[in-house]
Amino acid sequence: MVAKAAARGLGGTIRRMAQNNKRVGVIGLGSMGIGIAQSLLREGFDVAGADVVEAQRERFRQAGGRAVAQPREAAEGASAVFSVVVNAAQNDAVLFGEGGSAEAMAPGTVFVSCCTVDPAYPPKTAARLAERGVLYLDAPISGGAVKAAAGRLTVMGAGAPEAFAAAEPALAAVAEKVFRIADRPGPGSAVKLINQLLAGVHIAAASEAMALAAKLGLDLPTVYEVITASAGNSWMFENRVPHILEGDYQPRSAVNIFTKDLGIVVDSARANQFPVPIAGAAMQMFLMAAAAGMGRDDDASVVRVYQKLAGIELPTQD
Amino acid sequence: MVAKAAARGLGGTIRRMAQNNKRVGVIGLGSMGIGIAQSLLREGFDVAGADVVEAQRERFRQAGGRAVAQPREAAEGASAVFSVVVNAAQNDAVLFGEGGSAEAMAPGTVFVSCCTVDPAYPPKTAARLAERGVLYLDAPISGGAVKAAAGRLTVMGAGAPEAFAAAEPALAAVAEKVFRIADRPGPGSAVKLINQLLAGVHIAAASEAMALAAKLGLDLPTVYEVITASAGNSWMFENRVPHILEGDYQPRSAVNIFTKDLGIVVDSARANQFPVPIAGAAMQMFLMAAAAGMGRDDDASVVRVYQKLAGIELPTQD
Repeated sequence: MVAKAAARGLGGTIRRMAQNNKRVGVIGLGSMGIGIAQSLLREGFDVAGADVVEAQRERFRQAGGRAVAQPREAAEGASAVFSVVVNAAQNDAVLFGEGGSAEAMAPGTVFVSCCTVDPAYPPKTAARLAERGVLYLDAPISGGAVKAAAGRLTVMGAGAPEAFAAAEPALAAVAEKVFRIADRPGPGSAVKLINQLLAGVHIAAASEAMALAAKLGLDLPTVYEVITASAGNSWMFENRVPHILEGDYQPRSAVNIFTKDLGIVVDSARANQFPVPIAGAAMQMFLMAAAAGMGRDDDASVVRVYQKLAGIELPTQD
Repeated sequence: MVAKAAARGLGGTIRRMAQNNKRVGVIGLGSMGIGIAQSLLREGFDVAGADVVEAQRERFRQAGGRAVAQPREAAEGASAVFSVVVNAAQNDAVLFGEGGSAEAMAPGTVFVSCCTVDPAYPPKTAARLAERGVLYLDAPISGGAVKAAAGRLTVMGAGAPEAFAAAEPALAAVAEKVFRIADRPGPGSAVKLINQLLAGVHIAAASEAMALAAKLGLDLPTVYEVITASAGNSWMFENRVPHILEGDYQPRSAVNIFTKDLGIVVDSARANQFPVPIAGAAMQMFLMAAAAGMGRDDDASVVRVYQKLAGIELPTQD
């Protein structure tokens, strides 16, 4: 009880510090990062956004943000630094590489790690940052680019109460729902991994189902209408099948994201000596799509793997 | 246009005939059939329910129904005969076997086939019944036992306008939603097959995901809460994972239903020379559950296959 009260007291102090410091860094201005940065701007934060690509920086400047090239510059003087990069290697680079942010963060600053990583990564990295007094919030996100831009993400948070306290004002600006999954980093990424297993399998299953429907000569919009009102529905079926019905494979989220995320699922399961045959089968479908040159296309492109094999007719844009 | 108007006129005549004849037969008084029969009773129909099992007949008698042993008795004098048996072989038996219903149905009667069958079956069987002037409605159902009992099923209907017209009053008593997928029998079963592909894969994926979550040491109710609010959600995840959280494998719908239905998916796809690797992987998981002696247990038992292999801890009832 005493320890809890003390922690709460410390949390309160940090929260007040954070509330007084409206400077926040966002590293990675891709489709999710730019949305997070814009949501923070909208809520009155002083946001420095870093990206290696000048076009992304320019886009952020035009949205009224302060764009910088190096992670270190985004972190200087910030109370919270969001990392919205693609994977653990990039996360390491923006922290500890040349021009990295770790050295620029003052003690008490919180590093909010949003990317999907193996659950073994956050505790390891949190320990490295703890040496400098920097807090780590394991904070994978869900919701897609539209919700990111609207400040309505879901955060699967895990970390020390002080890390949550320091991140709280900024999180409130970017998320509709912040789950507090554990009081140590790691379980946030583990729950995200479970989510990505399901999401990946559901996209592959939706693709397989719609491809078979086409092969059976069914009217695809009718199939969509019936399934979304039946027990075969999934969030991904409902969200991705319209891309197939419109023949629109412009990437909202790319095939390569799932070769990566199902790769993390399969690797992490194997490291735990645990079989995941369904996720394994789904990963192979995404790999087939990537092998066929669709890696940067929308992830609903898995349906075009079946098309390539079986010559089914699918809707096209025009 | 003339043909359409004539059909509409005929449909109107049949509808009026059907509305005057409140006698309906229900063959198969399992968890779905009994709900359908009770919903019809509730709406004032004179229902004869047939089942080979005396215990099922007794249950129906106690609900106020007229229970008979032979399909033929259920069909006599009825305007519509629902078949709610398990598969195509049983459907053939209740139609054309000893004591079968086909001979007892007067011309203009509609046979409403609710079970999940290969899409090639309905046109074949419809043609046999047409020789006697009996109509055939390809009418697979979705929704589970609770919705069946409440008269709130989804019907994936396909058949001639006259078949729909003859079945309409009875369908209104058992279904909340009647899709008119095509004006010939077959496509209803094809859409149901697509639904079962997705439903089966989603149950297997939910099981795999929750098993991996247990292996990673996550708190399972928390995982359920986060996933049902995230993009990894599915109708089946939301519906079946509570069975896992409660450790309750009393069958709401059994493993054997999915070894059968995914079997139809895989067989039908193979007959069309079409690959379904995700459905194939899911079917193997249901077969593993059946092989391990869980065939009659709830279909969420797939999670216990992973438990059997990897020794994870799952909630138990006590």
